[in-house]
Amino acid sequence: MKLTILGCHSATPRENKHTTSQLLEVGGNLFLIDCGEGTQIQLRKIKVKFSRIQHIFISHLHGDHFYGLIGLISTFRLLGRTAMLHIYGPKGIKEIITLQLKLAKSWTDYPLHFHELEQDSSQVVFEDETVRVETLPLDHRIYTNGFLFTTQASKRKMNVDAIKDFDLLPFHFKQLQQGADVTLEDGRILENEVYTLPPSKSKKYAYCSDTAYFEPLVPGIKEVDLLYHEATFLEKNSDLAANTKHSTAKQAAQIAKMANVKQLMLGHFSNRYPNKEDFITEASDTFQNVILAEDLKTFNI
Amino acid sequence: MKLTILGCHSATPRENKHTTSQLLEVGGNLFLIDCGEGTQIQLRKIKVKFSRIQHIFISHLHGDHFYGLIGLISTFRLLGRTAMLHIYGPKGIKEIITLQLKLAKSWTDYPLHFHELEQDSSQVVFEDETVRVETLPLDHRIYTNGFLFTTQASKRKMNVDAIKDFDLLPFHFKQLQQGADVTLEDGRILENEVYTLPPSKSKKYAYCSDTAYFEPLVPGIKEVDLLYHEATFLEKNSDLAANTKHSTAKQAAQIAKMANVKQLMLGHFSNRYPNKEDFITEASDTFQNVILAEDLKTFNI
Repeated sequence: MKLTILGCHSATPRENKHTTSQLLEVGGNLFLIDCGEGTQIQLRKIKVKFSRIQHIFISHLHGDHFYGLIGLISTFRLLGRTAMLHIYGPKGIKEIITLQLKLAKSWTDYPLHFHELEQDSSQVVFEDETVRVETLPLDHRIYTNGFLFTTQASKRKMNVDAIKDFDLLPFHFKQLQQGADVTLEDGRILENEVYTLPPSKSKKYAYCSDTAYFEPLVPGIKEVDLLYHEATFLEKNSDLAANTKHSTAKQAAQIAKMANVKQLMLGHFSNRYPNKEDFITEASDTFQNVILAEDLKTFNI
Repeated sequence: MKLTILGCHSATPRENKHTTSQLLEVGGNLFLIDCGEGTQIQLRKIKVKFSRIQHIFISHLHGDHFYGLIGLISTFRLLGRTAMLHIYGPKGIKEIITLQLKLAKSWTDYPLHFHELEQDSSQVVFEDETVRVETLPLDHRIYTNGFLFTTQASKRKMNVDAIKDFDLLPFHFKQLQQGADVTLEDGRILENEVYTLPPSKSKKYAYCSDTAYFEPLVPGIKEVDLLYHEATFLEKNSDLAANTKHSTAKQAAQIAKMANVKQLMLGHFSNRYPNKEDFITEASDTFQNVILAEDLKTFNI
């Protein structure tokens, strides 16, 4: 998985400080997660082919997470898109988008499929042979979901050294990849565990924004490879965090520790803090492996 | 009047090519005209105090002219705005904005007054002692208005050399400014035409975007000081202009000539033309005093 941060700042966009949006590449899929105002300009900066984006996941209907969606949908149309676009987000998102398309007399020329969410427990919203996407219900001022991306266990790999002396046919490879032994024409048997290697391990990325400190989240994100957890505030403003149902860097680290994740990324920073390193300092007391999100930076998971 | 172009490109925002928005300063008033996605970031670049914007005029409900409005409204709230905001735009704009505020549970803390427009003839939508704003109905794919800004005739100016030998009281100045003669205590009369100079001439700015070539527009913009007229296309793509109800540079110049305006500014450029000077070249055959809009550039009217 390859994660590009398009924006990681809260509330309102400023010059060089973009509101939340992320692009996650898994296999050939490009998933857009949240879509603050100006996301389409950020996408242009990293030179993504827009048509590759087929699925957009919106966590909640606060503007800094979705005001860029209608513009992106319109731009897809102007670029001549024909492929279906899937949008996953809270109930109400369809009404907002379709009302604007209607009043502009600008229906999309491509199929637009809304998957409206209103369930308070986790649900699988997308699954194909490479990845599964589940919601992670969060605790915010309005209905909000995080998203858990899990790569599917891949096929077993050929042990190239072991099989090199056999003239294997395509269906032999398929049997081996699927974990079966192979019986050759001459009766010899190739045991799967000798002639293959274990598949690549499944990877997990959990996106959690926006949310108050929320322990019920922990079981769903156990041991993920990367946890993005919002840290709008530092502890010195924990009253603001409580009032607005956001988290502090320390609280994000506590969740990361309880879930025993491999790495924690902080983001959704309030504009009040000039020095972002303070977030690392505060979180590191509780959880060691912590990094900061940064606009237009790409991270390998 | 001082006009700052925040964005002058059509259809879809790109890096360093912003969609339509303009800021017009008249006296102490700041008027925002259209509000494409990312307008609030452009406003930050020119370091405008957001609270000074009290009136926003939206020409029509195509995204490149208003997708930035909801974000700006939200940002006003986050900045603690208390002053009323007036929004003038086509019927439907109130529903779009209030639906988004409702679903986000983010009502504004300041009064938001929508002036929904649906009239096909020109109407005065705002007037105070410094400026009058009228709609200019245009011909586009959906209901669209341009806007004509006319500064009110100001008071007569003191003839400083002539009055310097008199001890005038405040009410004497007021009488002179209003065009009356003044009778002093000793019976002497100061004739208005001797002791004052004519008021500054009224200035007119006409904003016309988006529109097909539309001759009925001409009477409403006669002899304005500056006409901003869209020129999405060049004549070589006049078929596209006709199909999409946009104008070519030549057509904009024809309107400017018929209206005998003092200066023509072209904008709303399609992204297909690498050399913007071609717009000047094409228009200049018909109308001499033509300039190009440019993002973040300010023009005195």
